[in-house]
Amino acid sequence: MPEQLPASISRTNQTKLVLPPNTNHMGTIFGGTVLSYIDEIAAITAMKHSKQAVVTASIDTVNFLSSAKVGDILNLEGVVISTGRTSMEVYVKVDCQNIETGKKTVTTTAILTMVAVNKEGKPTPVYGVTPETEEEKKLFQNAQRRKERRLKINEFSEEI
Amino acid sequence: MPEQLPASISRTNQTKLVLPPNTNHMGTIFGGTVLSYIDEIAAITAMKHSKQAVVTASIDTVNFLSSAKVGDILNLEGVVISTGRTSMEVYVKVDCQNIETGKKTVTTTAILTMVAVNKEGKPTPVYGVTPETEEEKKLFQNAQRRKERRLKINEFSEEI
Amino acid sequence: MPEQLPASISRTNQTKLVLPPNTNHMGTIFGGTVLSYIDEIAAITAMKHSKQAVVTASIDTVNFLSSAKVGDILNLEGVVISTGRTSMEVYVKVDCQNIETGKKTVTTTAILTMVAVNKEGKPTPVYGVTPETEEEKKLFQNAQRRKERRLKINEFSEEI
Amino acid sequence: MPEQLPASISRTNQTKLVLPPNTNHMGTIFGGTVLSYIDEIAAITAMKHSKQAVVTASIDTVNFLSSAKVGDILNLEGVVISTGRTSMEVYVKVDCQNIETGKKTVTTTAILTMVAVNKEGKPTPVYGVTPETEEEKKLFQNAQRRKERRLKINEFSEEI
Amino acid sequence: MPEQLPASISRTNQTKLVLPPNTNHMGTIFGGTVLSYIDEIAAITAMKHSKQAVVTASIDTVNFLSSAKVGDILNLEGVVISTGRTSMEVYVKVDCQNIETGKKTVTTTAILTMVAVNKEGKPTPVYGVTPETEEEKKLFQNAQRRKERRLKINEFSEEI
Amino acid sequence: MPEQLPASISRTNQTKLVLPPNTNHMGTIFGGTVLSYIDEIAAITAMKHSKQAVVTASIDTVNFLSSAKVGDILNLEGVVISTGRTSMEVYVKVDCQNIETGKKTVTTTAILTMVAVNKEGKPTPVYGVTPETEEEKKLFQNAQRRKERRLKINEFSEEI
Ligand SMILES: CC(C)(COP(=O)(O)OP(=O)(O)OC[C@H]1O[C@@H](n2cnc3c(N)ncnc32)[C@H](O)[C@@H]1OP(=O)(O)O)[C@@H](O)C(=O)NCCC(=O)NCCS
Ligand SMILES: CC(C)(COP(=O)(O)OP(=O)(O)OC[C@H]1O[C@@H](n2cnc3c(N)ncnc32)[C@H](O)[C@@H]1OP(=O)(O)O)[C@@H](O)C(=O)NCCC(=O)NCCS
Ligand SMILES: CC(C)(COP(=O)(O)OP(=O)(O)OC[C@H]1O[C@@H](n2cnc3c(N)ncnc32)[C@H](O)[C@@H]1OP(=O)(O)O)[C@@H](O)C(=O)NCCC(=O)NCCS
Ligand SMILES: CC(C)(COP(=O)(O)OP(=O)(O)OC[C@H]1O[C@@H](n2cnc3c(N)ncnc32)[C@H](O)[C@@H]1OP(=O)(O)O)[C@@H](O)C(=O)NCCC(=O)NCCS
Repeated sequence: MPEQLPASISRTNQTKLVLPPNTNHMGTIFGGTVLSYIDEIAAITAMKHSKQAVVTASIDTVNFLSSAKVGDILNLEGVVISTGRTSMEVYVKVDCQNIETGKKTVTTTAILTMVAVNKEGKPTPVYGVTPETEEEKKLFQNAQRRKERRLKINEFSEEI
Repeated sequence: MPEQLPASISRTNQTKLVLPPNTNHMGTIFGGTVLSYIDEIAAITAMKHSKQAVVTASIDTVNFLSSAKVGDILNLEGVVISTGRTSMEVYVKVDCQNIETGKKTVTTTAILTMVAVNKEGKPTPVYGVTPETEEEKKLFQNAQRRKERRLKINEFSEEI
Repeated sequence: MPEQLPASISRTNQTKLVLPPNTNHMGTIFGGTVLSYIDEIAAITAMKHSKQAVVTASIDTVNFLSSAKVGDILNLEGVVISTGRTSMEVYVKVDCQNIETGKKTVTTTAILTMVAVNKEGKPTPVYGVTPETEEEKKLFQNAQRRKERRLKINEFSEEI
Repeated sequence: MPEQLPASISRTNQTKLVLPPNTNHMGTIFGGTVLSYIDEIAAITAMKHSKQAVVTASIDTVNFLSSAKVGDILNLEGVVISTGRTSMEVYVKVDCQNIETGKKTVTTTAILTMVAVNKEGKPTPVYGVTPETEEEKKLFQNAQRRKERRLKINEFSEEI
Repeated sequence: MPEQLPASISRTNQTKLVLPPNTNHMGTIFGGTVLSYIDEIAAITAMKHSKQAVVTASIDTVNFLSSAKVGDILNLEGVVISTGRTSMEVYVKVDCQNIETGKKTVTTTAILTMVAVNKEGKPTPVYGVTPETEEEKKLFQNAQRRKERRLKINEFSEEI
Repeated sequence: MPEQLPASISRTNQTKLVLPPNTNHMGTIFGGTVLSYIDEIAAITAMKHSKQAVVTASIDTVNFLSSAKVGDILNLEGVVISTGRTSMEVYVKVDCQNIETGKKTVTTTAILTMVAVNKEGKPTPVYGVTPETEEEKKLFQNAQRRKERRLKINEFSEEI
């Protein structure tokens, strides 16, 4: 078996119809619902890459750029963009499509760190990843910088 | 009516029992479920402060420090720690309590920016906040630094 | 370990946002939803006191004094108010807060009997409770009278 | 249209399969889930009788006589047993069927008061009911006694 | 124990209130929700007959003749109408009742094949069924024709 | 705007993680859950093509060829394969992926007829579709034969 898996192994799509139970009184979707969709697709993406159960170690800052309302369609795409020994960075893009105009707007993007775990919940090694698209290659190259940035953010958070 | 509201107006508690539908095959809770609990309590917290509907503008980096398993109890606390013209920063602490030992471990903390909106979804002004506990005061003082940090993170994300 | 636990060990808060899926066509919450919130907080309350799994043995008459509508906030508080050998009486207060006015109205109060059980579902002994607030003390004192009343109600129910 | 409706107009059946999400760690159903099933069937029963929306005014003491576990079948039956000007008493029986043995055990019975309301949530008059089975006739006859008992219970509750 | 069980053993009723989370923007119920209600009642019906766990092997063509909207009541009835060695045909009727007029319209009917399985998921034998009503008798007699029709449909599907 | 839309406009993917709440005691997914996933993706697919709300008119015979268990991943793909005046045929393929082996097995395929409707629920015209892949072209060509087959099946169903 190869030690590097192509990004296509993990690339995953989701399409969600925005329904009343997931929206507030103004009919716009809850941030928490979008976050749980993001985590769900990141988990599936990382499971496909690692062929193991995974847990979410962290999610980088998420900005909600535009809202989605009842009847809109959310498209999510997830892909593993870099790997550590037991961890995988998953990049998730979410856009929102208006059904009448067909117009798509970016709702948000997110980067999560997922860790492969065995049945006892212990971290276990994962294969490397070979990025394929231009975007994936760029994201792959900046993995180290994101790692350093995360450390700085976490330090800062500790001082509060 | 006062222009500053004490933090106690918005302080909000949640207690959740971890149940099978919110857990993976190893019986540990999904990150996405915790994120949606965090967003839910942040929304209620900000609604109590602003007396208006709110939307989630962003959530700062979240690290999941320890997991919670079926039968554990999650305690969440939310409080408004600083305000802008129409936005509120909400600080959320999540800990996990083992029912047999009573032992509590920190699961995560998070800072969200919530924006008060009117019926048309337009941002509307909110009152200021007066921090009360030591922790709230410290969080209040660092609001400006967090704002700058967010700008830097967002710039960085754009280059990716 | 002490044989009496203070009421503060079990005291539990919940805050719920009333959402469309839990309401009827007029946008008011279902009684059944409120009842399931009451049972959920009573279970968590009793689990904190007994440090064990619990089951609901009974719920005393519940009157719904006022309704809650979409966008309102429900505040629930639960506390163990008296104990038997394996059972605990849990007192639950529910009020409803209008977000714009901040006005709170009592929705209902309820008293449930929860029983601590081991892994086989067999009742197991629980510690006693020391009431703390005035209300808790009064509720503690009347435990015997409530027990007798329950017997009478049950007899009556059997004749139908 | 008749001023008295036969009980058969409102008689309603439900069958529920007990599934993991509605059960605790020992695989037995939550009291709160049973309570919300009871309220749901009582609402449908009262809607069929009144041909209007209804709200739950109260539920009399409920004892859980036996538990139901994952894979069991719950059978619920609801029927209007007496009426006031705007209120209806609904009697609900719940039994639990073990799938392998086919054995049925009574889980609980409950009596709820449902009130017919118009679009503004104001109580509106309902037809009378003509009981049909022996059990319904007995329940119908004791309606006045139950009403008095309820008043006594409520007085008692107020003193706490 | 008898080798033939009367249809009454399996006959099962469900009543569902159509609620906002199960409807689209026009407030009419999703076909998928109706299909999952149909599968749920078919499973319970087949479990009652076979006294075992069951899986759905197939569902014959379903036409949705009329829609159901928020506030309507759906009545479902399921019954085993014929049996093979390990399979059971279950007939499900769904009608929709308007609460104000009391008028019922047929929403759909469906025939499902359910297979009894043991703990390892292997098909296991079931008793025969004795139809009781006129409709059941007719459905019982045509079982063979439906089986042949299914084979033809499946062949056709394979060519696509 | 063109009167024919390419199939790519409507092509839609879903990925679902099989979780405990959607499975029976043996941990295999309910047929009804799969059916509601199929209807959900068919609705999204048809909404993308018609740029309107849609309702499900019918679903052709569905066979469940293999089961999916907790921890498996379901992949769904939907595409419009033919159109009438107001109706669209949607073809849905479902396969199940085992996470450890990566092996995929076909769970089922389904053909649904979705009708575009306006705000009053009245059928409204839709564009034609241009099939793209070999499979789509074959499905497109046999649309007429499927229509005739459906009529025959429905006639047969009426005699029961
Ligand atoms: C994630 C977790 C398994 C890490 O455990 P640990 O004991 O720190 O294990 P390790 O130190 O061996 O770290 C394992 C990997 O996780 C990474 N990691 C740990 N914490 C992280 C964080 N906050 N952010 C990003 N990566 C993190 C490590 O860098 C390491 O990566 P590598 O193997 O690729 O180098 C552990 O913190 C945990 O279980 N957290 C809870 C996860 C969870 O249940 N989330 C859902 C909601 S609570
Ligand atoms: C039930 C409710 C409509 C009664 O309103 P009200 O202003 O007291 O109206 P009325 O005094 O005219 O009473 C209407 C009927 O309800 C009955 N009723 C009121 N409170 C009751 C109670 N606690 N128990 C039993 N019946 C009660 C009255 O006896 C009267 O019956 P009748 O017309 O047959 O004689 C009102 O209390 C309410 O809206 N409660 C909340 C209901 C709800 O939303 N429940 C869901 C969860 S909160
Ligand atoms: C249904 C299933 C158990 C049949 O397994 P199998 O190996 O084909 O078993 P058999 O050949 O012994 O068939 C068992 C019975 O099922 C019937 N059957 C199998 N496939 C069928 C189909 N598509 N439609 C109708 N009946 C079918 C057979 O006719 C046989 O009936 P009989 O015993 O009364 O003569 C198997 O296909 C399966 O597990 N499918 C998935 C079921 C599921 O999980 N559904 C939920 C959603 S995926
Ligand atoms: C589907 C529905 C809108 C059709 O209404 P109608 O009055 O029969 O309208 P029409 O005769 O104009 O038919 C409209 C289209 O639907 C098609 N259609 C109607 N019934 C159908 C069926 N059972 N199977 C397949 N297509 C069907 C017609 O062929 C026609 O297609 P075309 O315009 O491409 O030629 C109507 O039957 C309905 O509302 N059903 C309930 C839909 C629903 O709510 N489903 C969810 C669960 S109940």
